[in-house]
Formats: sequence, structure tokens, C-alpha cells
Amino acid sequence: MRMKEAFPIPISDIFAPSPNPGRELFSLLGKPGLITFAGGLPDPAYFDTEGIRASYDAVLSTDAATALQYSPARGLPVMREAAARRLIGDGIDADPGEVLVTSGGQQAIALVASAMTNPGDIILVEEPTYMAALYSIAASGARAVGVPSDEDGVDPVALESAIRTHQPKLVYLIPTFQNPSGRTMSAQRRAAVAEVLERHNVLLAEDDPYSELRFTDVRPVPISADPRMRGRSVVLNTLSKLVAPGMRVGWVHGPEELLRAMTVAKQAADFHTSSVNQLAAAHYLAHADLERQLSGIRAVYRQRRDAMVDQLAAQLPAGSQMTKPQGGMFTWVQLPPGYDAEQLLPAMIDEGVVYVPGAAFYPSQPHRGTMRLSFASNPPEVIVEGINRLCAVLERSGPA
Amino acid sequence: MRMKEAFPIPISDIFAPSPNPGRELFSLLGKPGLITFAGGLPDPAYFDTEGIRASYDAVLSTDAATALQYSPARGLPVMREAAARRLIGDGIDADPGEVLVTSGGQQAIALVASAMTNPGDIILVEEPTYMAALYSIAASGARAVGVPSDEDGVDPVALESAIRTHQPKLVYLIPTFQNPSGRTMSAQRRAAVAEVLERHNVLLAEDDPYSELRFTDVRPVPISADPRMRGRSVVLNTLSKLVAPGMRVGWVHGPEELLRAMTVAKQAADFHTSSVNQLAAAHYLAHADLERQLSGIRAVYRQRRDAMVDQLAAQLPAGSQMTKPQGGMFTWVQLPPGYDAEQLLPAMIDEGVVYVPGAAFYPSQPHRGTMRLSFASNPPEVIVEGINRLCAVLERSGPA
Repeated sequence: MRMKEAFPIPISDIFAPSPNPGRELFSLLGKPGLITFAGGLPDPAYFDTEGIRASYDAVLSTDAATALQYSPARGLPVMREAAARRLIGDGIDADPGEVLVTSGGQQAIALVASAMTNPGDIILVEEPTYMAALYSIAASGARAVGVPSDEDGVDPVALESAIRTHQPKLVYLIPTFQNPSGRTMSAQRRAAVAEVLERHNVLLAEDDPYSELRFTDVRPVPISADPRMRGRSVVLNTLSKLVAPGMRVGWVHGPEELLRAMTVAKQAADFHTSSVNQLAAAHYLAHADLERQLSGIRAVYRQRRDAMVDQLAAQLPAGSQMTKPQGGMFTWVQLPPGYDAEQLLPAMIDEGVVYVPGAAFYPSQPHRGTMRLSFASNPPEVIVEGINRLCAVLERSGPA
Repeated sequence: MRMKEAFPIPISDIFAPSPNPGRELFSLLGKPGLITFAGGLPDPAYFDTEGIRASYDAVLSTDAATALQYSPARGLPVMREAAARRLIGDGIDADPGEVLVTSGGQQAIALVASAMTNPGDIILVEEPTYMAALYSIAASGARAVGVPSDEDGVDPVALESAIRTHQPKLVYLIPTFQNPSGRTMSAQRRAAVAEVLERHNVLLAEDDPYSELRFTDVRPVPISADPRMRGRSVVLNTLSKLVAPGMRVGWVHGPEELLRAMTVAKQAADFHTSSVNQLAAAHYLAHADLERQLSGIRAVYRQRRDAMVDQLAAQLPAGSQMTKPQGGMFTWVQLPPGYDAEQLLPAMIDEGVVYVPGAAFYPSQPHRGTMRLSFASNPPEVIVEGINRLCAVLERSGPA
């Protein structure tokens, strides 16, 4: 048969919730007692199982004809309104008419990439950036180009220079509690980025899945709330970290002209997001005490962040750098020169610990000494043990 | 801003469950008393609401940690097993390991198109074919080329000639109760197509959403059950017509090598299909009396098919052709020369009836005198009234 050219199986396969069977590392991952910092999974112990069950029951008891039927590609009105209310709470001048409901945050990225670019177009991204966004960009035929970032987020001078050089169709950023770096852009940096994007009239795709998982009272204001961004930004949100990823409900908010193109792409992709999940999600957002629920999760994750960051700080080799995230699920380590986090992985798994090597988060020219560590999935004592194992391997192996 | 080249809003938007607001025809579609034969919606009165509600309740009561969590891109094992059991019931030598769960049948088409083709590659389709498949093919960057079909389905001689001319990456067919034509390929025709595909070693994508909606005891055997198709066919199924479209659960079955490429595309598209919907669907398939449920729907749809076909036969202009489908949801009318079903539409809506003009179902060179009529959504007396209106307009306008 004439086959499509080989499409490489990305490394994410190894670290996805259930890896592709038959791959070498997979058998190692099944090892009993392995402590994994690799996944991006919320701890299911903190799902509001009873509240969510009640919402499914309510919508299937009272509005099954809508819940079980086809629904509009744009999303059901009740979910679009719920999304707009949340966006308004984030400081964005949102309108339910400018919301497209997606099958989770990953689809939001995929639709932005496929609807906003033609093959070969450039999308600028932070370095490092969310690994699976790179896959969606690649699948759309666009090309991701990295822009250097520091502890305050993407560098606005480098951004402006990259815009001049690459004439990108859009800039994709995760300003708050970034995956993978755990960094948060400062207010000043956000303003500087908005200024650059306005000056060059470039579209921003602002991905904001983590901002409700904040460990302080500071609620970063989205770049898209800046008046200069009006008409030139789309915001991507998801319920995956807020309610539950298994429901696969997210949304994009943006100007009608762009949403229309994304809605056409959505129709071609999967017609519409599950009606029953949209109704249940909207019902849950309207009836649950989400703030109480979130404050519980925040306290748990903050404690885990502390356990991880403290243990890393005490044991990482001299010259290492790491983030102390103010929210989200991930911390990021940069080892001193000579360490390669991917090459170390077999020894790490042998020792009983696993992470995602940071190289996967760079569109090109990766820092090979980086690793992403999730603190969300394990209790503090397991985190401490896992970091001990990790640092034992680092000490044993030393730099190359 | 540098925008992507304009992407045309397809005509389907007008006929989608909830059309894009602001379009001209849309305001007409809101007309009270309008009888629509345009949609492809199952009648919600025949959803097994209570059974489905019970399945959601069961999985959220007993396995919420799985239902609400991320899950594998390939699909949850219990749903892949349920899909394989159904495929085996259809005569296909299926294995749960060779199933990819999708977010409905539309995504199955989109993933096949995007994973099996590179931009510019050819996919052969029947003429006419499913409109939304044409959109997914176009969105993937591939090009659909039509192959003539007759009342027995695609013409094997024309298919072989098109394979020689176009060197397609795959052939997309809906052999049973086809959308839009209502036709079913005969067993002889299926064998002839399998022979051609084997001889030229071309991949078949066999879309089979409707075969359980059959009005006789004859259960057509999928082409993919033919031993000559082993290793060179993928089967696309969905629960949309079997259980409920709002759940958005479908699947693809095929050789591992192809599924692996589709799984990568699935990860980039939306990570995975909703875990809660997969568990609920698998639970429903395991516990519900689906045969009893289906026999009720079949009886209702058969009666509606009869009402539509009888009324059309009595009133269509001389020289018209139409299908009497043995299952599914659609009949297909070809008016005599001089009629243009799209140009007639405003007068039809004015009269209080609407259908989908057949032109939308051709990749090129449409028969302008064709229309697709769904008999699934209205009771017989409404169907009779709608066909009366339709034929009154035809009689009044006459051929151009």
C-alpha cells in the first residue's frame, strides 16, 4: 500500500497516561514501586466525584433530549455562557457569542493552529513550551519557532526580533504557571509583550489551563485583558485542571472572524463537543462550590510543591537551577553542564523514579540538562523519596 | 493581522443542527411550522434515556477515578473490547488491540484522512458521498476524487480506472444505507470491489454508521470481512445512530501500523475521547437490551421511510428517480433535467419545507437536480405534509 511518510511517534507516547505497548521503556514503566513525576495528571482523590455525578444525573434526568442529541459546532449556549462568565471573572471582556466549546484544551490548541495557519506558516512559542502544543502545531502543518524566555517569561526584545524575522501567524504563550517551566510572567512583562504584539499586529493565543491552581492570593491578569489586545487575542481554557480532565471540555474565546474559521475546523474535526459533557459541566459550574473545591486542591498541591522544591534545593548538584512555581503542577530543573536528562532516564527508572526530559519541550536546540517534574500526583512523603532517588542517580553518575 | 487564506463556510453550516447565526437562510429556517428533512438527527423520542442515565450513574458511582481522569489516546480497554465485540458480530475478525476509540464517527474520518495522507494526496470517494467526509478530507489537505456509482454502489470498473489514474492513498466508501443516497452495495458488488482493492493493494476506509438501522432481516456483510481485505482496510463505526450522538463515541479498527499513525494524530487532535463517555458507553453496551431498543427504532424509521417514499412516488414529476432505502435515515431524489435543487430552496422554505440540495455531496461536477431527504426526524403525517409542500413547489416551478 502507498503509505503516508513515516510520522515519528513522539516521546510523549512513553509518558502518556497509558503508553503505547511494545515500546522498550514501557516495560520498565510498569515496574512496581516506580515513582512517577512524568505525568500531568491531577490527583483523582481531589475530584469532586459526588458533585460531578450529581450534575450528570441532573442533566440526564431533566434534559436528556439535548444531552444525547447532536449539538451546534460552536457549543451549547449554556456552556458558552458558563465559559464567558469564567472569562469575565478573569478580567476579560467576554461574550458567549465569542466562545467556541472544544473537546478539552488540547483540541483548542489544535483548532487554533489548524484554523489560523496554512502549511509552512510560523507560530512563535516560548522556549521551553508545552510539548503537546508542539505536536498539534506540527500536525497542522505549521512550524513552531522558539523565542527565549527567562524567569519572568518570554523575552519581549527577542519576541519582537523573532516577529520581524519570521512574520508569524500567531504567538502561543502560557503566561501563568507555565507547563513545563512552572514560571509566571510578571505584570510588567505581560504589558511589554502586549505592546510588542500591538505594534506588530500579531495574534496572541494565550493558553491558561492552570491559573486557578494558584498557591498565593495573587491572581495574574491575562495578557488578553489588556485593552491593546482587543481583537488580536484568543484565550484557551479547559476544565481539565478545574473540574476533571475525563470530561474533555474546554473553550476558546476570540474575535468572531477567527472563531468562525475555528468552528469550520471543529466541524471537520469532530462535529461538536459531547453534548452530555457540556451540559454536565455547565450544571456543575453553576451549582458546585467550586471555590471551596479549589481551595482544597490548592492547599494539597502547595504542600506537594513545597516538598518537591525543598528536597530538590537540598540535594541537586551545585550549579543546578530550578523553579519554585506559584501555582500549577510542574517544576523545572536545569542541571549543570554535562548532564543529559534523557540519557539518564534508564538509570533513573532502574532506581525507581521517572520524569520527562526537558528536551521534548523545545521546538529545536533543546537544553539537554532540563527535566519537568510534576508535583501534583504524589503525596509529600512519596515526593521526598522520589527526589532522593533522582538525586542519588545524579550524584552517582555525575556530569558526562 | 496576517490571516489564514479565507476558508469557505460550507453549506452544511446552513443545515447543521444549529446553523451559524447571521446567515441569510438561517432566519428563514427559524420559520414556525417549517418541516425539515435536512438534518441527520435521530429522533430523540427513541433514545433509551433511562438506560443511558443509569450507565452514567453506574460508572460515576463505581469508577469515578477512571471516568474523570485522563485516559489513553487509544481508548479505554473496556470500550475497545466492546467495540471489538460489535465488529466480531458484524463478521470482522477484530481484536481490541486494533481498535482506536474516537470522539464520534466524524473524528474517525478526520483521523483516517489526516494520518493516511499527505497534503495533495488523493482519496477516492463514491459519487455522491457523505458531505462532512468531504470537509474532513479537505481539512486534512488531501483531495477527494469522485467515482461514479449506481444503484448497487460504487462501479468497480470505474473504481479500477480511477485507481490507475489517481494512485489514491485510500478509498472511502459507505457500503450500507449510504448517506446521502440511501443505497446499499450488493454482495456481488462488494466482492468485486474487494477484488479490485486487493489487486491494486489500495487501503479501504469502510464507514458503517447505519447498518444497525436495517428495515429487513438482511444484514449486509462488511467489505472488510472479505479475507482479501485483511491488512488493507479500516472500519469506522459510531454509537451516534446506535445509542446517542451526544455521547460522541466512535471507533476505528484496522492494522496496527495504521492505528499507530492515527493514534499519534488523535493525541495531537484532542488527547483522547472523554473517559466518562467511554465508560458509560461500554457499560450501556454491556447491560442494555440493545436489540430490543433497536427493533423499536427500526420499526419507527421503516414506517417513516414508507410514508416518505410512497408520497414521493405518487407526486414527484415524471422522470424523477428516487431510492427506497433498506435502512438508515435518508432517501435521495434525482429530479428530471432542468430542476436545480439549490435554486429551488428559497421557494421551498417559503412553502415550509427544507432538504439538503444534493450538490453538496459531490466532490466536483454535482448533479444539480438531486436532494437528500431525511425521513428519521418526523412522524409519518408530518412527512406526508412536507412532501406535499415539496412537490407543490416542484409542480409550480417546473423545470428551468
